[in-house]
Amino acid sequence: MDIQIKKDLSAPRLRELIRDGEWKTPTTGVATGSVQANLVMLPREAAFHFLLFCVRNPRPCPVLDVLEPGQWEPRIARGADLRTDLPLYRVYRDGALAEEIEDVTPLFNKETVSFLLGCSFSFESALIAARVPVRNLEEGKNVSMYITNRDCIPAGPFSGPLVVTMRPMRPDQAIRATQVTTRFHLTHGAPVHLGSPDEIGIEDLDQPDFGDPVSILPGEIPVFWACGVTTILAVMSASLPMVITHSPGHMFVSDLRDEDLTLL
Amino acid sequence: MDIQIKKDLSAPRLRELIRDGEWKTPTTGVATGSVQANLVMLPREAAFHFLLFCVRNPRPCPVLDVLEPGQWEPRIARGADLRTDLPLYRVYRDGALAEEIEDVTPLFNKETVSFLLGCSFSFESALIAARVPVRNLEEGKNVSMYITNRDCIPAGPFSGPLVVTMRPMRPDQAIRATQVTTRFHLTHGAPVHLGSPDEIGIEDLDQPDFGDPVSILPGEIPVFWACGVTTILAVMSASLPMVITHSPGHMFVSDLRDEDLTLL
Repeated sequence: MDIQIKKDLSAPRLRELIRDGEWKTPTTGVATGSVQANLVMLPREAAFHFLLFCVRNPRPCPVLDVLEPGQWEPRIARGADLRTDLPLYRVYRDGALAEEIEDVTPLFNKETVSFLLGCSFSFESALIAARVPVRNLEEGKNVSMYITNRDCIPAGPFSGPLVVTMRPMRPDQAIRATQVTTRFHLTHGAPVHLGSPDEIGIEDLDQPDFGDPVSILPGEIPVFWACGVTTILAVMSASLPMVITHSPGHMFVSDLRDEDLTLL
Repeated sequence: MDIQIKKDLSAPRLRELIRDGEWKTPTTGVATGSVQANLVMLPREAAFHFLLFCVRNPRPCPVLDVLEPGQWEPRIARGADLRTDLPLYRVYRDGALAEEIEDVTPLFNKETVSFLLGCSFSFESALIAARVPVRNLEEGKNVSMYITNRDCIPAGPFSGPLVVTMRPMRPDQAIRATQVTTRFHLTHGAPVHLGSPDEIGIEDLDQPDFGDPVSILPGEIPVFWACGVTTILAVMSASLPMVITHSPGHMFVSDLRDEDLTLL
């Protein structure tokens, strides 16, 4: 499919293609302007503490939607089915990755609670619109992600370190980027750190814990945002019998528009 | 106690006076600059759905802190005890007000989950600082509150109408008030409506459902903010065997400062 056609796809049409097995690849850069979300499905008995973990750590875990136990149609995408409308899912058992599958209907039951959390795609579009460089997109790479020495506030069985993404830019661009992303508080919001990586426990920017390293140009500083992978580490820390998440890059595409996520 | 002494009281000292039974009156205008909070205590089995109700309705129900089951010391006020540190509590049984008491220790158990929610005191200070009139304070009255025709998004057993407060002001002041309160998203944020009361189901501004009517001067329009009483109605709708809340005006005074609540 042509890149422009991919960009212009409507969110409902994309979900239909995915549900019918005609779309199996990542959703990055598709249905531009539609808000994409991280998915976490876990049993009702862990739902209070997981929601509490998200509320206590809103920068890495911004809540877009939470469904009642056993429901699969989110308010932010009427007619959608969270059991089938993502291209690829990950299943964790007892805290370890067990398998990747394309349909989780057989694993879903009336006690399953689904969470949709904001991801950074929306604010990357806003950065580009504000002429702030997004190096990972420029270089066609995955964003660089690092495990920091900062702990999230735990909740029940959920705990873990804050994971951050890094985008290099000039100081004046870092100021502009702070202004722009502050508005997007439901997709990680303002940066959590800028400058010295040491201070948050990152030894070598060239060796990210997840994703790819990107070029840092002369005069640029690293700017760090909270990252949704934080949630995955917290979910794994709880060692629940079974948790389902999206597979990296294979997100849920909602009917919300990027601008719906801004506070101002 | 002298008004200035009341204003200058530190939050920990005020909580101590309350705990020792030496302070039994409302906390309005006391310990200026310290964030005051609404309290809701309910059983663990209802905690997920109540937290979900708050997350789905952040304007009326902004979450400041949620404690683990059985805990009484909040993160936002170290050393405090939510069972004794409010001057007056209300106890609801099966959805109806049963009694008002000064100490809820005997009713608290290891399954009790406590929620602290933002109230409008913080943004009223910010409005005054921005030279926006707060008529209820000028006239020494309780703010006017109205039940609207807008429904909150329900969650499990919790549902109910949106309740709003109203402050009259000139259109230019309404614009300034919108800017100022947008920053205070953890204490109800921006207005939910301005102008025609009819549109949100309010027939007569002179007959508020709660609080007192205030004067509306020539050239002024009513400006409406989401109100914490929304939470009380939602809690009553669930008809739980027992729920504890603060008594109106008798709030929990935290160690957070007003400016900690701003997004920008």
